[in-house]
Amino acid sequence: MAENADDHIVFVGGKPFMNYVTGVVMQFTTQGAAEVVIKARGKFISRAVDIAEVSTKRFLENTVTIKDIKIDSEEFENKEQKLIRVSTIEITLAKK
Amino acid sequence: MAENADDHIVFVGGKPFMNYVTGVVMQFTTQGAAEVVIKARGKFISRAVDIAEVSTKRFLENTVTIKDIKIDSEEFENKEQKLIRVSTIEITLAKK
Repeated sequence: MAENADDHIVFVGGKPFMNYVTGVVMQFTTQGAAEVVIKARGKFISRAVDIAEVSTKRFLENTVTIKDIKIDSEEFENKEQKLIRVSTIEITLAKK
Repeated sequence: MAENADDHIVFVGGKPFMNYVTGVVMQFTTQGAAEVVIKARGKFISRAVDIAEVSTKRFLENTVTIKDIKIDSEEFENKEQKLIRVSTIEITLAKK
């Protein structure tokens, strides 16, 4: 397969919920992705989990499964030079 | 080891953030837990990830690591008999 796995990433933010679910489902169904990675930071982590669950259980049942889940932290300085830590998640969905 | 792994579970809700981190750290340090499972539902999932990250990276660095992460859904009827789906997470921390 010539395609790059990096092409199939969904970054979760504040757009309407179903935009992200549709994004995930379309990558599997019309773009032929073997894997899709859902990425989120901070408060959007809960949403990323919802998107993974709805995509795999309601729309791609029996065809796509949760392959891997990674959590991590990123640190950066805010404008007051204070060190801020934010959690991140990466949920990898894969065709069965 | 006679102890039951079920004894070492932290359910994440709306209490102050550090209560949960202290709970996790104490189970490893003073209660001798080999594993602690952090569980959360819905919007508290982001918080559960924060708690796991702060516990392992700031307080239990080099001694405790993230062993497993599971996500799932629960369905239940609300008082209007509507079927509601809520996502869940279980993060297992273990001594290295």
